[in-house]
Amino acid sequence: MHEIKIGLLGCGTVGTGVWKVLMDGREQIREKTGHTISVARILVRSLDKVRPKEIPSELFTTRIEDILDDPEISVVVELMGGIEPAGELVERAISAGKHIVTANKALMASYGPELFKKAHEKGVQLRFEGSVGGGIPVIAAMTESLAANRFEQVTGIINGTTNYILTKMTQDGLSFEDALRRAQEKGYAEADPTSDIEGEDAAFKLAILASIAFETRILPQAVPCEGIRRISITEIEYARRLGYVIKLLATAKRTPEGLVLHVHPALVPQTHPLASVSDEYNALFIRGDAVGELMLYGKGAGSMPTASAVVGDVLYIVQDRGMQGGGHSQSQEIPIKGEGAGEYYIRLQVADQPGVLGTIAMVFGRYEVSVASVVQQGQGQDVVPLVFVTHRVDKFILDQALTEIEAFPEVREIASILRVETL
Amino acid sequence: MHEIKIGLLGCGTVGTGVWKVLMDGREQIREKTGHTISVARILVRSLDKVRPKEIPSELFTTRIEDILDDPEISVVVELMGGIEPAGELVERAISAGKHIVTANKALMASYGPELFKKAHEKGVQLRFEGSVGGGIPVIAAMTESLAANRFEQVTGIINGTTNYILTKMTQDGLSFEDALRRAQEKGYAEADPTSDIEGEDAAFKLAILASIAFETRILPQAVPCEGIRRISITEIEYARRLGYVIKLLATAKRTPEGLVLHVHPALVPQTHPLASVSDEYNALFIRGDAVGELMLYGKGAGSMPTASAVVGDVLYIVQDRGMQGGGHSQSQEIPIKGEGAGEYYIRLQVADQPGVLGTIAMVFGRYEVSVASVVQQGQGQDVVPLVFVTHRVDKFILDQALTEIEAFPEVREIASILRVETL
Repeated sequence: MHEIKIGLLGCGTVGTGVWKVLMDGREQIREKTGHTISVARILVRSLDKVRPKEIPSELFTTRIEDILDDPEISVVVELMGGIEPAGELVERAISAGKHIVTANKALMASYGPELFKKAHEKGVQLRFEGSVGGGIPVIAAMTESLAANRFEQVTGIINGTTNYILTKMTQDGLSFEDALRRAQEKGYAEADPTSDIEGEDAAFKLAILASIAFETRILPQAVPCEGIRRISITEIEYARRLGYVIKLLATAKRTPEGLVLHVHPALVPQTHPLASVSDEYNALFIRGDAVGELMLYGKGAGSMPTASAVVGDVLYIVQDRGMQGGGHSQSQEIPIKGEGAGEYYIRLQVADQPGVLGTIAMVFGRYEVSVASVVQQGQGQDVVPLVFVTHRVDKFILDQALTEIEAFPEVREIASILRVETL
Repeated sequence: MHEIKIGLLGCGTVGTGVWKVLMDGREQIREKTGHTISVARILVRSLDKVRPKEIPSELFTTRIEDILDDPEISVVVELMGGIEPAGELVERAISAGKHIVTANKALMASYGPELFKKAHEKGVQLRFEGSVGGGIPVIAAMTESLAANRFEQVTGIINGTTNYILTKMTQDGLSFEDALRRAQEKGYAEADPTSDIEGEDAAFKLAILASIAFETRILPQAVPCEGIRRISITEIEYARRLGYVIKLLATAKRTPEGLVLHVHPALVPQTHPLASVSDEYNALFIRGDAVGELMLYGKGAGSMPTASAVVGDVLYIVQDRGMQGGGHSQSQEIPIKGEGAGEYYIRLQVADQPGVLGTIAMVFGRYEVSVASVVQQGQGQDVVPLVFVTHRVDKFILDQALTEIEAFPEVREIASILRVETL
């Protein structure tokens, strides 16, 4: 029987969740691990802010030294988010010989390898399950359970805010703006939702996942990234008619030419398990040479799910399961390539005149762009939508064909080009 | 750098997969773990049988002593299946100080606690990820990543054969017999499919999962079990019209009165992620107090997926991550209760006469069985189906009402009673 003391950096929504999981699970944790685990100190920016009243006020401190210099604290849990000052404090905690658990995606995506190196030198562990996918155990799955696999693909719905917005647009016919407002009311989107909406949050997480999957270093700024702001109800409706659901997907795929990496809205077949991932849920779809297709689904954010991952990491360390678990080697250099070939959904706005479809189809034919489906509906208006889904085509060729198509006077606008994900 | 030697017990489809994963992944395993892992000996029943030609014939032996007495072999991988002689050989391997990896559901469901005790005494590890859900890392998720949770429910599609059969019936309109034949042709069902079809295979796996989730000992024979033999196209079609898919579900749920445990065909809402688990795929739906709802999806059987789990376990042991990981405590005594209350689908075959619906509805009303949906279609035949879906009702009360209903001369048959799963 051993008393393990941890120091928390930050006491926001996840920090409060960690406190609650440790308190509510006290008995169970003691039974499972033979240890009691308690929060000894909590670093906060100001002592004046109102804190959850179940946490004793004497635990709060504004001095990091109260944690770093306390020899009884063996694990530091970083929940501040952002790169600084979190990064500096984590480095100092490692130097002080503390094990680290973090849920900080920005820090791990940008400085993971440096922190691992430092942790390795100091003989401490660094675990980060909560940084991607909230309570979904994707890091442990990839680094431990599936360690025998060579990974071929990781594709995920890894941003809950955008998935909630797209779900409300799809299921309730809300506009983007109304769905965003609903997400903000529910607490799924922040006052400034830019990082979620533009795909930046997903790019951080994809950088972490791809680095693990392909044993290489991928920085978040290397991930081509497109958000959901220009997805309209029109696209969602046409996608539905064609048998698809629009999702913001983060993808990393090994190809003979290199890694294909991107975050972008894409059409997913309605029958694919990723299509039924709704609301604020996340899912990770993984393909490995031995395991085949695997999907992990759950709550990708929030106080308690993320706390589940964080406390899971703490229990792992407490049970002293060695050093390799959390780390990921970055031995390989793999070129990162752009979007490449794929299937595409294209919506044109065209004049409602006879012969337009033929004109456009001729151009596609000349460029050998093969068309899988077309939806055309005259609506008695001057300008009508004309939707194509192509078979697999090189994006470069498609762009050439579309440049030519755009020049026709009957074509008023290329309103949308979206990827169809072939999973 | 360390050379790890393992001994295989059995060389069927999973054994061959393990060989392949270790050979193909040689370089990668060395990079990730710093060790090389090789198969030193393989125990088989007869040396005369034709074996995969990529495996050197000098590795095969019929003498267990060649493995147990070899001090260089540190891990024994048991892939024979069945309780004996696998159980005895595993015990002897533990006594000889070997770590154990097994994919044997029958053995772990029936004698898991005894084997853990023995392994603990001898200071060796016992891991069994491959015994449930093939390559899906459900055991690691529950015992490690989600260790901070108190589990409330585990519901799974954990038998690939029956899921394949139900999928073919649902998607292609095949009869049960034709779908079973197709499964046998594809190698998803054995010549004698009884254990799969009757739910016994799923009951073994559920016993393992529920024992872990609820930290108690649940023997497979304690799991009430019903197979899919009486599911007809008629039921599947009515379920579809009412917004459901029929799946063989294995469920363990904590209730104030005790554990509710069962394996049975049930109606799953079409929008639930479990509904899109098709063909031979498996999925585990887990609810924990912190993580909320989590689902793991993948290939639940087969040579390579199961080998992925088995080699993952070997790598875990090789990296010496301590003892607690695989074990599960069985400290709690929780009463197991029967089916209890729930929502039900009932198909009656009734005479096509006016007033029948009213007569039956009156009986339901008297027993306070509240009806959620009714489908009645006169088809110009003497006897027509009449389908009810109830709201939540005590099974005992429902049975009383149905006994009374069955006595009416207009009611020819209670053709089907199925559970509607409220997930």
